[in-house]
Amino acid sequence: MAEQKATNVYWHEGEVTRNDRANLLGQQGATLWFTGLSGSGKSTVAVELEKALLAKGKLSYRLDGDNVRLGINKNLGFSAEDRTENIRRVGEVSKLMADSGVLVLNSFISPYIQDRDQVRSLHEVANIPFIEVFVDCSLEEAEKRDPKGLYKKARAGEIKNFTGIDDPYEAPTNPEIHLHTDKMTLEEEVDAIVAALAELNLLTEPKA
Amino acid sequence: MAEQKATNVYWHEGEVTRNDRANLLGQQGATLWFTGLSGSGKSTVAVELEKALLAKGKLSYRLDGDNVRLGINKNLGFSAEDRTENIRRVGEVSKLMADSGVLVLNSFISPYIQDRDQVRSLHEVANIPFIEVFVDCSLEEAEKRDPKGLYKKARAGEIKNFTGIDDPYEAPTNPEIHLHTDKMTLEEEVDAIVAALAELNLLTEPKA
Repeated sequence: MAEQKATNVYWHEGEVTRNDRANLLGQQGATLWFTGLSGSGKSTVAVELEKALLAKGKLSYRLDGDNVRLGINKNLGFSAEDRTENIRRVGEVSKLMADSGVLVLNSFISPYIQDRDQVRSLHEVANIPFIEVFVDCSLEEAEKRDPKGLYKKARAGEIKNFTGIDDPYEAPTNPEIHLHTDKMTLEEEVDAIVAALAELNLLTEPKA
Repeated sequence: MAEQKATNVYWHEGEVTRNDRANLLGQQGATLWFTGLSGSGKSTVAVELEKALLAKGKLSYRLDGDNVRLGINKNLGFSAEDRTENIRRVGEVSKLMADSGVLVLNSFISPYIQDRDQVRSLHEVANIPFIEVFVDCSLEEAEKRDPKGLYKKARAGEIKNFTGIDDPYEAPTNPEIHLHTDKMTLEEEVDAIVAALAELNLLTEPKA
């Protein structure tokens, strides 16, 4: 858990509120957190969802392990400590973006329950919706897909600390949305998420 | 400069583009970087600009040293190294938010030219507009205002490494916008920025 270092720091309250931005956009910002094994289909469904939301006139933005690690988290590796800091920072970025009004689609293996719960807490404290989406796929199926050839490298010992092989994956116990990507079509997955967002009133202006 | 640690990392290109989001919003995302001494008026003008942009139906969001240091950068202090990492991370967050379509208003003392230029480079490489706004105010005037009582503490030796007192401020040599907050009214400052944004075609859809 990161420690607060800076003192003499005060929150500067603006006069434009989150509700003002939500009314401008006709939607409410939120963090959707896709968690699952490498190859489970997290980015695939996020990419498709992004298109579906645009078609509805809704603003979304994708963050994923790969593009974040080339930027904000370029100085982090894959040790347990660095993975935790990786997820913490992404959680904070996503919270800021969701506060700005964006539907943020985060695709991260994020294997540890404690890390995901920390991000959930950050959002709950700020009263920003956090929606955990379990992208569920058996290890056998994910390893068979192996879209980036990473399981093969991990089995050969060329990659260490690989989730599902020599590092654990802790599945969500009570996710807001549970996708079974080895049984559902991509279209069914997207429809399920859009329906859940509508149910939560995130695709319209906030109630007065 | 942060070093790239993670390997086996690839950029996942989505199918929704920055232009798609800009067309949806009727604006183009950009980073506005307000730099200047503590008490120079950075947050004051950003707060007022945010209101003016909302009145025009434009989405903006403010990041500043105080709220960022309570979140994404809570594990950083005020050493030269931590200040550099602070600005680097903010630059990356702002770049992501600007890419999503938001006009991001960053108020940071950001005293070192090298740090600000690093953020500028990040944006240039990604072809995202970066607008440096020099919030210029003499040290005498800023110290007279001393809205948070920090200069008094710094003079008394209770705060170390305070910009302008025992740490340098390196003024921008060629900022996109130069405000003189000890000579201009707040309204004149906001008008100058809005005019500059319009001139850069950021307040309308991108040209086809």
